[in-house]
Amino acid sequence: MGRVALLLFLFAVTVELSLGISHEIHPLRPRLGSGAANLQVLNLSCLSWRFGVETNNIIGWYGVPQTCKSYVGHYMLGTQYREDSRLVVYEAIAYAESLKLVGDGKDVWVFDIDETTLSNLPYYVDNGLGTGKYNATLFNSWVLQAKAPALPESLKLYKKLLSLGIKVVFLTGRGGSQRNATVTNLKKEGFLTWEKLILRGSSETGTALVYKSNKRKMLEQNGYRIVGNIGDQWSDILGTNTGHRTFKLPDPMYYVA
Amino acid sequence: MGRVALLLFLFAVTVELSLGISHEIHPLRPRLGSGAANLQVLNLSCLSWRFGVETNNIIGWYGVPQTCKSYVGHYMLGTQYREDSRLVVYEAIAYAESLKLVGDGKDVWVFDIDETTLSNLPYYVDNGLGTGKYNATLFNSWVLQAKAPALPESLKLYKKLLSLGIKVVFLTGRGGSQRNATVTNLKKEGFLTWEKLILRGSSETGTALVYKSNKRKMLEQNGYRIVGNIGDQWSDILGTNTGHRTFKLPDPMYYVA
Repeated sequence: MGRVALLLFLFAVTVELSLGISHEIHPLRPRLGSGAANLQVLNLSCLSWRFGVETNNIIGWYGVPQTCKSYVGHYMLGTQYREDSRLVVYEAIAYAESLKLVGDGKDVWVFDIDETTLSNLPYYVDNGLGTGKYNATLFNSWVLQAKAPALPESLKLYKKLLSLGIKVVFLTGRGGSQRNATVTNLKKEGFLTWEKLILRGSSETGTALVYKSNKRKMLEQNGYRIVGNIGDQWSDILGTNTGHRTFKLPDPMYYVA
Repeated sequence: MGRVALLLFLFAVTVELSLGISHEIHPLRPRLGSGAANLQVLNLSCLSWRFGVETNNIIGWYGVPQTCKSYVGHYMLGTQYREDSRLVVYEAIAYAESLKLVGDGKDVWVFDIDETTLSNLPYYVDNGLGTGKYNATLFNSWVLQAKAPALPESLKLYKKLLSLGIKVVFLTGRGGSQRNATVTNLKKEGFLTWEKLILRGSSETGTALVYKSNKRKMLEQNGYRIVGNIGDQWSDILGTNTGHRTFKLPDPMYYVA
């Protein structure tokens, strides 16, 4: 989607909102399409597709179904994505405030980065909203520009945790070569301090689920208590050493195993 | 909701459908209410509430928010509940068909019962759709009537698994005193055979998550391979010995820890 298309898209959303059409994320219940060809015969809507994705029933998927592109666009660019994120952060803050912390500086909260701390939505809007083929070169050049905006609800959680004396550990699938850009981007967007920023070493292959479990295990071996853990992917919050409680942010754009 | 109210409710759904209003599960985006009083100030919709519930972000909750009763009613009695269930079962069957089974009779699939195998919707329609206080006496007498209908998508999965040579284990929080009624109900509804039907003994207190993890561990200790595991509660599919893959059916009516 180019800039003009994006403007038209946002215009359409605005018109819908101004008309009081508040069900903007599923205007036509588009049917599942090319990205899930077998599902088309089931005649299921993108609502069911998103339920399946967000509940970890649909796994290992690649590409938003073409017929759900508009649905995903409305969801991400309309109000619902922000509202769903707000609910998750509300629950996370209520939980964090209920904790009795040890207060020895070893209470940490693990944050994933992409679609958890920083939003790549500007990139995805320009690149098919998850329907296209993943282009590692293009995505890397986007990351190196260090201009991904903060996810505002997550920034609120981050600030609240710091104020409660909980330290933040960023644990990301981004690679070591992206460290400088990631540091720049985080600071520019208001994430000014952290206990650790863990990126994936070039030798650390395998799934994100195993990589992240191993890193969390090392944190615990180093005396940290993972009081909370938040991510947009189930691979951020399943596996081992998941933390005392986990939170799942929405992400209907892509899947990471 | 009495019978008359139910008929009116179904009539309203029918009218909506006949008018081509296909977004019937969230007609007014009702705001969160009494059951989640603190959320009301967030001005969030029942869509976000359901996202939070189905993704295990909202835990330990008791009672559907009063303002989401209509939303939950439309969801459960309209087409979306069935469609979401259909998607889950589609994924489960695709997975089951992909398995290379050992074929020694030790490949099993674990099914929860309530809202996974049998539907208590007739009970909940008469008792506030999850908004009211849980009444153990009333619910027990409903269970003893043995007239809960099969969840049709789950029955399809059950039959497919048997045809593939996978045996079924029912693992339920229902108590031993409900065994006869449960057997009668299962058979009446087409679940004619099973490897085991595990009910909770009166001494087996604690959370469903721990109870079910223990029972699954015993299955594995007895040589069974849990190739799949399906439930409507996260406590059915989290914990230990969860099985090779898990599936989460929708349930916005109640929470079991």
